[in-house]
Amino acid sequence: MSEAPSLRGTWYIVPTPFDGAGELDPASLVRLVEAAVTWRVDGLTVMGVMAEPGALSTGERASALQAVFDANHGRLPIAVGCSGGALATTLELIGQARELGASAAMVAAPPLFRNVDQLPEYYRQAASAGLPLVIQDEPNATGVVIPVSILLAAATASGSRTMKIEDPPTPPKIGRLLAGNAELDIFGGLGGVSALGELRRGACGTMTGFAYPEILRAIRLRIEAGKSREAGVLFDRYLPLIQFEAQQVIGLGIRKEVLRRRGVFTTHRTRGLTASLDGTTLQELDELFDRLGMVPAAEPFAPA
Amino acid sequence: MSEAPSLRGTWYIVPTPFDGAGELDPASLVRLVEAAVTWRVDGLTVMGVMAEPGALSTGERASALQAVFDANHGRLPIAVGCSGGALATTLELIGQARELGASAAMVAAPPLFRNVDQLPEYYRQAASAGLPLVIQDEPNATGVVIPVSILLAAATASGSRTMKIEDPPTPPKIGRLLAGNAELDIFGGLGGVSALGELRRGACGTMTGFAYPEILRAIRLRIEAGKSREAGVLFDRYLPLIQFEAQQVIGLGIRKEVLRRRGVFTTHRTRGLTASLDGTTLQELDELFDRLGMVPAAEPFAPA
Amino acid sequence: MSEAPSLRGTWYIVPTPFDGAGELDPASLVRLVEAAVTWRVDGLTVMGVMAEPGALSTGERASALQAVFDANHGRLPIAVGCSGGALATTLELIGQARELGASAAMVAAPPLFRNVDQLPEYYRQAASAGLPLVIQDEPNATGVVIPVSILLAAATASGSRTMKIEDPPTPPKIGRLLAGNAELDIFGGLGGVSALGELRRGACGTMTGFAYPEILRAIRLRIEAGKSREAGVLFDRYLPLIQFEAQQVIGLGIRKEVLRRRGVFTTHRTRGLTASLDGTTLQELDELFDRLGMVPAAEPFAPA
Amino acid sequence: MSEAPSLRGTWYIVPTPFDGAGELDPASLVRLVEAAVTWRVDGLTVMGVMAEPGALSTGERASALQAVFDANHGRLPIAVGCSGGALATTLELIGQARELGASAAMVAAPPLFRNVDQLPEYYRQAASAGLPLVIQDEPNATGVVIPVSILLAAATASGSRTMKIEDPPTPPKIGRLLAGNAELDIFGGLGGVSALGELRRGACGTMTGFAYPEILRAIRLRIEAGKSREAGVLFDRYLPLIQFEAQQVIGLGIRKEVLRRRGVFTTHRTRGLTASLDGTTLQELDELFDRLGMVPAAEPFAPA
Repeated sequence: MSEAPSLRGTWYIVPTPFDGAGELDPASLVRLVEAAVTWRVDGLTVMGVMAEPGALSTGERASALQAVFDANHGRLPIAVGCSGGALATTLELIGQARELGASAAMVAAPPLFRNVDQLPEYYRQAASAGLPLVIQDEPNATGVVIPVSILLAAATASGSRTMKIEDPPTPPKIGRLLAGNAELDIFGGLGGVSALGELRRGACGTMTGFAYPEILRAIRLRIEAGKSREAGVLFDRYLPLIQFEAQQVIGLGIRKEVLRRRGVFTTHRTRGLTASLDGTTLQELDELFDRLGMVPAAEPFAPA
Repeated sequence: MSEAPSLRGTWYIVPTPFDGAGELDPASLVRLVEAAVTWRVDGLTVMGVMAEPGALSTGERASALQAVFDANHGRLPIAVGCSGGALATTLELIGQARELGASAAMVAAPPLFRNVDQLPEYYRQAASAGLPLVIQDEPNATGVVIPVSILLAAATASGSRTMKIEDPPTPPKIGRLLAGNAELDIFGGLGGVSALGELRRGACGTMTGFAYPEILRAIRLRIEAGKSREAGVLFDRYLPLIQFEAQQVIGLGIRKEVLRRRGVFTTHRTRGLTASLDGTTLQELDELFDRLGMVPAAEPFAPA
Repeated sequence: MSEAPSLRGTWYIVPTPFDGAGELDPASLVRLVEAAVTWRVDGLTVMGVMAEPGALSTGERASALQAVFDANHGRLPIAVGCSGGALATTLELIGQARELGASAAMVAAPPLFRNVDQLPEYYRQAASAGLPLVIQDEPNATGVVIPVSILLAAATASGSRTMKIEDPPTPPKIGRLLAGNAELDIFGGLGGVSALGELRRGACGTMTGFAYPEILRAIRLRIEAGKSREAGVLFDRYLPLIQFEAQQVIGLGIRKEVLRRRGVFTTHRTRGLTASLDGTTLQELDELFDRLGMVPAAEPFAPA
Repeated sequence: MSEAPSLRGTWYIVPTPFDGAGELDPASLVRLVEAAVTWRVDGLTVMGVMAEPGALSTGERASALQAVFDANHGRLPIAVGCSGGALATTLELIGQARELGASAAMVAAPPLFRNVDQLPEYYRQAASAGLPLVIQDEPNATGVVIPVSILLAAATASGSRTMKIEDPPTPPKIGRLLAGNAELDIFGGLGGVSALGELRRGACGTMTGFAYPEILRAIRLRIEAGKSREAGVLFDRYLPLIQFEAQQVIGLGIRKEVLRRRGVFTTHRTRGLTASLDGTTLQELDELFDRLGMVPAAEPFAPA
């Protein structure tokens, strides 16, 4: 484990932008990378669940990855979601990520994987593809519940030190994992809804797609500075938006709409069956912005 | 449907109090009923999922129900959770509830019920037991995902007009149900985490165990008065506590601890494997109370 | 572990008989116990999943249990299904079973139990109720997938030596468990559909509700005598009936119908929503009996 | 619906062969197509669940598909499994299948798709890609349970007439579907374990990967000729092999091993974590062949 790099801090999970015709929109991706740099995040994660990887063709996936790596040109470390339907495809995705220059590969259990006793071996083989792994525990997306004992064994078997835990309630699970192996770096996720509690239990950061990652960063910095109460006040203030974005199914569109309002994306389209948000949801977002005193950008985001 | 009574408003789901030895604590139940009356809730729901009905013996269930009905003596309408493992036990529970004088029986699908096409018939037969039904849609607790079309058919088949929807995201599901049958009365639940959105989409109220139901009531009254912004401000303010209580697994203990701090319960014990909250969780609650300006009661709750 | 008794062989899981009006039919239970003795099974299991415990009232459960224990009067060891919705109810059921004189309590994970890391502690506490446990691994009925590592830990924590494995494919899982702890006694179940493979991998027997348990016994005796081919021929011959009975949902009614044809039950009623088998299913069973050369009993079963 | 072609009979689902190094083995695929023609199946299905599509790279998928279409050169109709993770990828896969000359696209619900009310719209849009659909109901592989009412609505919305039902017990579900829409052509699957019952309830055939499809064909022909008893005798005789192959997880390797013994494949390798069968399983298969009087081929399969 000692050789694996330590990934920590506030990582931003990049969603995939589509234009008004539903096509991949690389220009928005470029703007997003620039914005993320100014937001001072510690890393980017591309092709996470939120990137709709299952809705992208192979060519689109490659284009989107290339656009992010090109725009970043080495400024931020990048983790790539490499969760295949089976080991063979996972290994192929990790190989591609390595060639692009990724810092890590994030790998969840294959969907509906039944025999979780085999997961340590699965991760051991995945690690052989040559990138540090982020072991992702995401039962909502995979249908696979993984016990703490198996996660610990998977980290040991694969020589991994990084996990992302999204099996709620996340704070106690993170606590149990760290009690079992204090050297682990464990990210919280789930849109940040439990970020405060996760950081309090020793999480190394938050890796999620909340569209104001600088807020999550500010919370983390206060926790790290021992200013718990200030962290809590900040978390409380923005929780309504964090939670509104974190809703299942419709949350991704909301998140893209926030990015649109920040001048980064040009549409909030997703590749769900209902590509657009309904009027009520948009109005709720208007009102939330109003109540929180948040102001949409006047013009497209551009680096200073 | 025209004959079924309309249940609406802010209903409070009663948790089951245990004393320091883990035994049923009827005195705390009595205090809770008195408190609920002063909180001006519109009804009580007993033996919901949150009451840990699966962890009570038959005798304890009967004692707890009796204690609530006795303490209430007709002041508030009472719905009783009557979800059995199969129709026969559901009918038996409804029969018991009717004898106690319940206003309604809340019935979820049996755990892991597979053939949801049979649910309309299930509810039709459940309705034959002589109480109005609250059709509860609670996939987290039952493992059963119920489509809107089946819920609508279940309401029609059983002559029911009341539902409680806890399949997130709840606001759009409530919207779809009302689009299909505008006469339905649909409660939100899930601890109130989406109460604002649910009420905005036409929910008739919130039926949940959040330990400050008067806050949910205040939000609802503002929505009903057309004061959306005020409702939103109130919701935002208390969302950190709503969400902290709504955590899976540990949320029930937190909720009981809040009731303890309000002078109503004497312990926060649950019948989960870990009966007590850990120190970190208690400290988080302390800090949350501090940040929100909430003050524990100086002495046990007593009606004025 | 050394103190726990060894349960082995062909155990028969007792279904609950209902009369034409759907009421509990104790006389059929008495006949069934007598029949099971003549079938030379090694033990009885009552209140397993197949007994429809979720569809029985508390009083019916007590009556059915009493009828079986009375009819048996000590001839066969009896295991009682004691799977409650939570530890408290499980302990209560075990206490009742112990008072009746049960030899063991069969306990599955509570429905939809999420944190399987807690199962060893769950079983440890369950064992404190004073009966040897049969640790039942039944994901179809509980929604809980349990890794081999956790099952082994549960056996150790609770001092249990007996398991019943119903997570298909069962033969390799039984092999992995015995590789981890060779002292375990592991029953197969699932209606016997994999009985041959289970016994080949070292299962101590079959515990299931197949309505001709003497066939499963004959297969086991041949395996134990090293006559694998004979065991296989016997298994092949009756597999069509084993599998027909083992169908999900409708299988229980089929099984009761076979008991009716054997002169033991008077109806095939279940407490499922569709209490009776349809005509096609009954005709399929007629044809199957015809093809296998099985003959319904001419008159009600009576001990010689 | 009148314009969609009628797919009926005994269809064979093609598994993907790998060589000793784990690489795609197109020569075995060619042999398999030739063999399937001599077995007189009514059609081929490629890239079904059994083909391990999640374990193939994009290039391997394309190569395997091309090899099958080339080897077949129009002799048999071919359905292609086109189940993507979302509509966009499903549409892309259907487009590719159409270009290859497929007769139909088999489409299951996306994994863990939650809102089944949207499935009729999903299939409506999938049908717009220009191939007749086989609506596949496969909850074990997808985690999605689909009610009969939704399946019927999906057929209507998409103008589809063909389904493949693998939600056990399949015979009554097929019966309910045909009661709702008598014009449907409904295949059974699940390795053929319920083929007899499915055909008795009106299934139009069996579409599965059982490695002796000519046996399933013979059963079907007897049912169609009104020779139920003969069909039953045949089904009973081979059920031990049908069931042995149909085991979850290890069944695919067994099936490939049978193809190896028939001279068609050169290895039984899968891309599961355990690529090879263990010795016990192979011995069980030896014994099963012995008991059933089946004889491995003396040399590689070659068309007459």
